[in-house]
Amino acid sequence: MKHNYLNNLPLDEAKALYTAHLHAAGFSATAETVRTADANGRVLAKAVYAKICSPHYNASAMDGVAVRAQDTFTASEHDPLLLTPDMYRVVDTGDPIPDGFDAVIMVEDLIDAGDGAYTILSGVHPWQNVRQVGEDICMGDMIAPTGTALTPALCGAMLAGGVTMVDVLRRPLVGIIPTGDEIVPPTDAPKTGEIIEFNSSVFRGMLAEYNADATLYPITPDKKDAIRDALQTALDECDAVLISAGSSAGRDDYTSEIIASLGTVLVHGLAIKPGKPAVLGEALGKPVIGLPGYPVSAIVVMTEVVAGVLAQWYGKTQNTQETVQAVLGRKIVSSLKYTEYVRVALGRLGGKLLASPLSRGAGVITSFTKADGILTVPQNCEGYETGETVPVRLLRPAAEIEKTLIVTGSHDPLIDEVADLLAQTGAPFRVSSTHVGSMGAIYALKGGLAHMGAIHLLDENGAYNESYIKRFFPDGGAVIEKGVGRMQGLMVARGNPLHIKDFTDIRHVRYVNRQRGAGTRILCDHLLRENGIDAAEINGYDNEEYTHTAVAALIAAGNADAGLGIYSAAKMYGLDFIPICRETYDFLIAEDCADDPMVRAFLDTLRSAACRECLARMGGYSLED
Amino acid sequence: MKHNYLNNLPLDEAKALYTAHLHAAGFSATAETVRTADANGRVLAKAVYAKICSPHYNASAMDGVAVRAQDTFTASEHDPLLLTPDMYRVVDTGDPIPDGFDAVIMVEDLIDAGDGAYTILSGVHPWQNVRQVGEDICMGDMIAPTGTALTPALCGAMLAGGVTMVDVLRRPLVGIIPTGDEIVPPTDAPKTGEIIEFNSSVFRGMLAEYNADATLYPITPDKKDAIRDALQTALDECDAVLISAGSSAGRDDYTSEIIASLGTVLVHGLAIKPGKPAVLGEALGKPVIGLPGYPVSAIVVMTEVVAGVLAQWYGKTQNTQETVQAVLGRKIVSSLKYTEYVRVALGRLGGKLLASPLSRGAGVITSFTKADGILTVPQNCEGYETGETVPVRLLRPAAEIEKTLIVTGSHDPLIDEVADLLAQTGAPFRVSSTHVGSMGAIYALKGGLAHMGAIHLLDENGAYNESYIKRFFPDGGAVIEKGVGRMQGLMVARGNPLHIKDFTDIRHVRYVNRQRGAGTRILCDHLLRENGIDAAEINGYDNEEYTHTAVAALIAAGNADAGLGIYSAAKMYGLDFIPICRETYDFLIAEDCADDPMVRAFLDTLRSAACRECLARMGGYSLED
Repeated sequence: MKHNYLNNLPLDEAKALYTAHLHAAGFSATAETVRTADANGRVLAKAVYAKICSPHYNASAMDGVAVRAQDTFTASEHDPLLLTPDMYRVVDTGDPIPDGFDAVIMVEDLIDAGDGAYTILSGVHPWQNVRQVGEDICMGDMIAPTGTALTPALCGAMLAGGVTMVDVLRRPLVGIIPTGDEIVPPTDAPKTGEIIEFNSSVFRGMLAEYNADATLYPITPDKKDAIRDALQTALDECDAVLISAGSSAGRDDYTSEIIASLGTVLVHGLAIKPGKPAVLGEALGKPVIGLPGYPVSAIVVMTEVVAGVLAQWYGKTQNTQETVQAVLGRKIVSSLKYTEYVRVALGRLGGKLLASPLSRGAGVITSFTKADGILTVPQNCEGYETGETVPVRLLRPAAEIEKTLIVTGSHDPLIDEVADLLAQTGAPFRVSSTHVGSMGAIYALKGGLAHMGAIHLLDENGAYNESYIKRFFPDGGAVIEKGVGRMQGLMVARGNPLHIKDFTDIRHVRYVNRQRGAGTRILCDHLLRENGIDAAEINGYDNEEYTHTAVAALIAAGNADAGLGIYSAAKMYGLDFIPICRETYDFLIAEDCADDPMVRAFLDTLRSAACRECLARMGGYSLED
Repeated sequence: MKHNYLNNLPLDEAKALYTAHLHAAGFSATAETVRTADANGRVLAKAVYAKICSPHYNASAMDGVAVRAQDTFTASEHDPLLLTPDMYRVVDTGDPIPDGFDAVIMVEDLIDAGDGAYTILSGVHPWQNVRQVGEDICMGDMIAPTGTALTPALCGAMLAGGVTMVDVLRRPLVGIIPTGDEIVPPTDAPKTGEIIEFNSSVFRGMLAEYNADATLYPITPDKKDAIRDALQTALDECDAVLISAGSSAGRDDYTSEIIASLGTVLVHGLAIKPGKPAVLGEALGKPVIGLPGYPVSAIVVMTEVVAGVLAQWYGKTQNTQETVQAVLGRKIVSSLKYTEYVRVALGRLGGKLLASPLSRGAGVITSFTKADGILTVPQNCEGYETGETVPVRLLRPAAEIEKTLIVTGSHDPLIDEVADLLAQTGAPFRVSSTHVGSMGAIYALKGGLAHMGAIHLLDENGAYNESYIKRFFPDGGAVIEKGVGRMQGLMVARGNPLHIKDFTDIRHVRYVNRQRGAGTRILCDHLLRENGIDAAEINGYDNEEYTHTAVAALIAAGNADAGLGIYSAAKMYGLDFIPICRETYDFLIAEDCADDPMVRAFLDTLRSAACRECLARMGGYSLED
């Protein structure tokens, strides 16, 4: 069984090598001439100078009359001056000042004196109320230097300066070749073994952010000749090529070999995580980059490498990405083998900007959809402690991050539904929710890491939540707001083929559990104790998932036979449900956030008629409280 | 002569009124269904839920062999296990786990034992190296709520969740009607009285930033019927209409009257500056906005009003614009009658973010092209003092502003040329230059407001610069770097029709002067003293301009007969030039910026061969030093 190994080149070294090679190969933008009116967003190929002055003639700045300033010097309230028709010409704003005249008296200051004459009570000095030639732009002045990204105002200034056509850098066209025998176009009904090809859509969107256009080539099977042909076509038609998947060193990974056959492979394997199996190559003077098949890895290589390559096209030596300092909400351990890019959610609380690390799996694209920023853990760093201040590159505008309600704790789809109802009514903030379990909510609130948390914590007396608050917040600091009642039970395959009757039957089947600290895990352990069952007896006790839907999905897929969860998850997956108890799912609010308008809006929406309708549709909830 | 008056409604009141009216009129986006692959940048009309799990089957996470985990439990280094061909199936990354198997051993851990068998030295637990169903996304999970602006990663996540089509809000189409008898399409040779129509290009670019498309209608003359017809057409075809110019209350200002004839005028006249003469109206349930003709006024109304109207279309209650705190570099006095929007240049120096106010004229579009941010001076505020900390809304990314070399002082086109040469070589910073005169440079460096300044300051002994530094920086704080020699003289009309022979002749002609503090103004005063001329004798002594090119432009236009300036400006405008002296134009560097890489790069470029070529082309410079 063939297996090659990848290099593990530090990113900086790899980029320096690659940049130098592409530079030597002549990779850079050519110029093209476009209409200035259409040039917004383009990048100047050379400095632009005004061809004419703006204004290009002496223009009245007001509606009024043009006069000779020297005729008016004597006018005052004590000694009004009569302007006879030969002494003025009517001008509107923008009209040229007639020859021989050099100032304007505005219409508000004219007193009608009959027979076409006006009285004025004060004089004007030369060029008063006149926009003189060149007031805004002087012919020959540089309007913008080489490399400027044109804004609407700059396009306006160039047109004002008589520049009707402008030389800009050609936008690069980047070819994207998706490869893989198992890859299929987007569908909502893929067969087993088929992988939906969505990476190329992600790349195209990212390329647009880098001021590049994209050509998507058809999906190419894992055959050397087919991929080589596709690459040859793309090299003919494009300025750079991305080959999606096949960039590693496995059995069907041909990217590196094919690039080498048509050009040069500079780097195969980067000391970054995710993103290690990348290929940086060149053919016909054009960059050819092999991207990993895992979406998160590919996105990291796009951000860390491809963005830089396109900056190089535009003659820039670096990208500017905004970096902020944030307080880390959870410890991160990272390998000394790699520079690691950790996706984090951000939100401001009590004056601090908080960064919560998201899933680090390479296949978890939702870690990017939820991410507000990227924390780079350098190769020589083993990680960061909770509470450390760390630099985070922003993925969305800082102003958006400032208006974030941070909800954490127990998973329930109802949190997403409330967030959606808030969005529907145009709430001026967003909800960032993470699933860290009920105990996670308590620790987050103790640490000042969330505005509010969702909890359903059963105690020894069979009561919910109150006793935990007394224990963990003996001196106050958090208040409970009543949430909903919800039905917990065993989710089992449709038709209950294993005839599971009650909780004790999990001893005989493959169980799927929830993570430590989850309220549902605590319920499971409570039931085990109550029924005198040893956790070691349970096949799958260590098989941990983070959400009700993840447990339901595994049972529906046949990976497990039973798991504890809420009714709405079972219903969603068409599973049978064996009710066990009705529990109290409450919201714990940080005391100093109790009056926060975002928290109030969340709770008001939770109690709205629209939310009740939504819960009724989902099923298994009760709203007595 | 007709003259109506505008209201002076505070912006907040005007916007509240307008928003409520448009809401009641039903102004909001409808939804449309698009391919998810094409939905990047669109805004969700409703929440999106995953239709399938991702992965939707149990997939191998590695190249290797699928096994039954329970078969492998006993394997260890001391007790290796032989995997015979019936015990495994070969799987590549992404392959489905065959029925009956539940774990994967990666290829790196397989030791070839011949006859298709492998030896392994450790076991795997169930689902190890398997991406289980729903690892990334679970069917039914909300991928994004209503109102989300789709990113590439979100499009990818939706496709991964089987969502191939998605309901997004329709992009609004906004009609733009340029009006005015004097308005002509972009040209580099406008006739006197013709005004180049560039506002519509600016609006179109800004609308794109607000996620709106634009239709540009032909230029319409100042005739009521013509404008009404154009508005009627635009109302038929578009979701909102902007009428450019004619929004005031002058003789040919028909916008308000025409909107009222087809619908309702809610506001005519805002208590803002620039931007007062705006009309906020509605017809057929669509916003119709009259924009002022002055570009800066129009841009402010776009930013303060039109952006909000389009946010309302998308169901947002507010825009998020990043605001930073900056130290004001120059005092601002503002009227209590208006909220004023002051364009400022920003740069960081010595840890402080500095805001330098730019020109406040409504016709000066270059104040927007140079602006990095907007300082809002509230209506009840008379302004701010130098050194006050003020909030500034950013117009460009903060990271770009961080890398800014602030050059101030005397005007010379050579500063722009050096900035351009730096950009050509891909320097990782930009140059922000302002023209505050040589004395302005000294005060700016004393106040810590600039990295470097350009000076040419003549003293009583006829020497340049050194004595000023001794006087103003007796304890150090600034160092001089040699710049260039340049020829100063009198610029006069081509052919010198008034036969001006030397400086003393300015007593008999119309002079145009430079501003107080400019080195050229100091030269003028020096020459006046030397020749025993009283400034009061000079016609135009108070006629002040800020740059050499502005002086040249006025002489070329016939507004003045003579002015002091540098040879390159005279050459650019084809003027005659009467040499007076060769002066020393040096750079003053803040001492603690002397080693700043941006300052070093600027000075290195100034002394480069490319810069010498450029100066030779411009003319009048000498480079002995």
